[in-house]
Amino acid sequence: MSTQPVSTDAAAVKAADRAHVFHSWSAQGLIDPFVVAGAEGSYFWDHDGNRHLDFSSQLVNTNIGHQHPKVVAAIQEQAARLCTIAPGFAVDVRSEAARLIAGRTPGDLDRIFFTNGGAEAVENAVRMARLHTGRPKVLSAYRSYHGATAAAINLTGDPRRWPSDTASAGVVRFWGPFRYRSPFHAETEEQECERALRHLEDTIVFEGPGTIAAVILETVPGTAGIMVPPPGYLPGVRALCDRYGIVLILDEVMAGFGRTGRWFAADHFGVVPDLLTFAKGVNSGYVPLGGVAISAEIAATFEERPYPGGLTYSGHPLACASAVATINAMAEEGIVENAARVGEDVLGPGLRELAERHPSVGDVRGLGVFWAVELVRDRRTREPLVPYAATGEANAPMAAVTATIKAAGVWPFVNMNRVHVVPPCTITEAEAKAGLAALDEALTVADRYAA
Amino acid sequence: MSTQPVSTDAAAVKAADRAHVFHSWSAQGLIDPFVVAGAEGSYFWDHDGNRHLDFSSQLVNTNIGHQHPKVVAAIQEQAARLCTIAPGFAVDVRSEAARLIAGRTPGDLDRIFFTNGGAEAVENAVRMARLHTGRPKVLSAYRSYHGATAAAINLTGDPRRWPSDTASAGVVRFWGPFRYRSPFHAETEEQECERALRHLEDTIVFEGPGTIAAVILETVPGTAGIMVPPPGYLPGVRALCDRYGIVLILDEVMAGFGRTGRWFAADHFGVVPDLLTFAKGVNSGYVPLGGVAISAEIAATFEERPYPGGLTYSGHPLACASAVATINAMAEEGIVENAARVGEDVLGPGLRELAERHPSVGDVRGLGVFWAVELVRDRRTREPLVPYAATGEANAPMAAVTATIKAAGVWPFVNMNRVHVVPPCTITEAEAKAGLAALDEALTVADRYAA
Repeated sequence: MSTQPVSTDAAAVKAADRAHVFHSWSAQGLIDPFVVAGAEGSYFWDHDGNRHLDFSSQLVNTNIGHQHPKVVAAIQEQAARLCTIAPGFAVDVRSEAARLIAGRTPGDLDRIFFTNGGAEAVENAVRMARLHTGRPKVLSAYRSYHGATAAAINLTGDPRRWPSDTASAGVVRFWGPFRYRSPFHAETEEQECERALRHLEDTIVFEGPGTIAAVILETVPGTAGIMVPPPGYLPGVRALCDRYGIVLILDEVMAGFGRTGRWFAADHFGVVPDLLTFAKGVNSGYVPLGGVAISAEIAATFEERPYPGGLTYSGHPLACASAVATINAMAEEGIVENAARVGEDVLGPGLRELAERHPSVGDVRGLGVFWAVELVRDRRTREPLVPYAATGEANAPMAAVTATIKAAGVWPFVNMNRVHVVPPCTITEAEAKAGLAALDEALTVADRYAA
Repeated sequence: MSTQPVSTDAAAVKAADRAHVFHSWSAQGLIDPFVVAGAEGSYFWDHDGNRHLDFSSQLVNTNIGHQHPKVVAAIQEQAARLCTIAPGFAVDVRSEAARLIAGRTPGDLDRIFFTNGGAEAVENAVRMARLHTGRPKVLSAYRSYHGATAAAINLTGDPRRWPSDTASAGVVRFWGPFRYRSPFHAETEEQECERALRHLEDTIVFEGPGTIAAVILETVPGTAGIMVPPPGYLPGVRALCDRYGIVLILDEVMAGFGRTGRWFAADHFGVVPDLLTFAKGVNSGYVPLGGVAISAEIAATFEERPYPGGLTYSGHPLACASAVATINAMAEEGIVENAARVGEDVLGPGLRELAERHPSVGDVRGLGVFWAVELVRDRRTREPLVPYAATGEANAPMAAVTATIKAAGVWPFVNMNRVHVVPPCTITEAEAKAGLAALDEALTVADRYAA
């Protein structure tokens, strides 16, 4: 029905991209984007039919794989019914998406505020916490990522914050537990946990509990390194928040909806936050969608007092329809269980085996289909293969590793000195093994830089 | 193909909404949302078939009307091809959407950074301006709305800012021209323009030009009252920005893509900003999408230096495909021209005629399908029908006006003491006249409160 066809010639696509598309997080003149022609399941390909096994899930969002037929059909059906409607109305797919999400979130997180993505989810969670408590500050962790709008980027504890840091947004940063690079000089996991909690409590006490609205943590920090916390840490944080009247926000934008082999990463630790942020896996990013799941107590604050936040596309029908189809398909097809099984049977054992053979591997850690391989120059000193926030020549070893994996037909997610193994939750055992074989090749390249 | 049908029973939809959906800008316990079952063209309806003429375009976004068949088809086709891909890749519909938008934006605004909506567009425009200039402050206007994430809400000059105001985000507010409620005690439009420019220049000089990254203005302020600026104002602001090395950001999230009867409102004034933000009309909100159009000079700043901002769904394929179809359909079907014609032939004359007959009408103003009717208690004193930021009982007169319009089968956009007449750009003359007839009834109710 469209009368003006879109050019699908690869050279024309790239030329128009270079002339008109301004890319995220990039020096526009130094990039040479791969032209994608199509995708299905665990693969995407270019216009010449060159396929890549997607070990990145794009930006760790296609938990259900590419072009899942049930989700595609749901988008097509909803497009024919009702593409958009303002947030003030009630509409079937919005009600159903909220009901399904509320049915999966832990505890009493039964009210859903929909946004367009993760950053806006974090923005609104922080606003809710500040208004609920009447307190100004938010505590967030170094080695974290929470999004790129003003409040979200200031909460972030990775170098992407630096250029936008306002240093005045009421944010106080602390250190979370990270056994491999312990900020607390701990010798056991128990000690790491105990010291991390002591550090957080000291920070709360010295900042003034009455000034702190919220502690925000990624349940399992993602881009910053997939550091699975010790079992006692999050229950300990929950107890500290309860003691001091502080709202606990768990950011599950990346870890939620199956990534760790459970619906939510919080399920591994038996912890119920007051607010839980989500995006990505909720509908695998087929349509932009994120949100905040809200406890009964915080929802009550806004029962008679207007909540002062919103957006034109909150609860967007097309996005909600895709979330409904995604959640139902994940449940029907045992996709979360698949992620857990592939993690336990293939990725965990396979990565540990690679670590034994490759001196460049300092650490492997993860859960489900959410793993980090940390590369070092020296296993004893744990010196990273490239320095923190390295660019250009200083990053050459990781660039070589990345190129080797891609040359083997696998698309990795690489951050600093780490390769993250984050395929779709739908990945088969055979695909997972094929991806590990490409990683094996690349680690041989990394080994050349390692002592 | 979806195995789990979504309930379309109106009572069940509303019950799940009240149990699980947390609504924008609302006291959750005090709302009773209208349940929408479907929509087409200028109408939407509930499950009993009660139709409303959409004089709101939802939140002033469905410029192309509801369920335009070419856009629906493009979404369905793209869903079958490729729903999502990460921002780092090149992909045909992303390239084409950027090319088409760049072809419509004024001047050399030829590089497009895509976001999920207007707030994120403003966030990124401000980041670009700060990094381009190396200066911290942004000047924004009272009577404005720029979005609800942290930077965007702090730039906003309406009461929705108050609960989230951090008072420290480097924002300085000034007054724009507004003939009906002149901040400058002007007696003519020329005087209003001259005094508004003098006020802005004084503010720049006293804040320190070397501290100011950007001036941000809605080309025609929208939610705050559709105040079309005097012809010389924006050229004058452009000259001030040039004189002091300040980036001019025009926010066309609401005014852009046909709303004023031109592709961009800036086209009325012959002004080319350095950055232009858009959302809503770019694809009528069929899929969440927004963005920033970037001048060659600002793009050059990020040619070899990485731009430090991004989001998972930047340049989302489904959103881009819907933008391509929307822009092409608007061009093919003369939809922008229709908006201009309906404004000139029906809405403008019709509203002026209503103003003559109804003492409650203090002012009507607008362009294209973008009009405000300002209601007053007294034409002489111009006392608003309800006080600024009124709620509850104080807002009763406007609540009565709103209820009367809805009872007549027309859905208005109401803000404070104003009814905004903002139907789709596709509205027919007959539909526009039907909407004005409902407004006529409602103004009789308003007249009861007027002297």
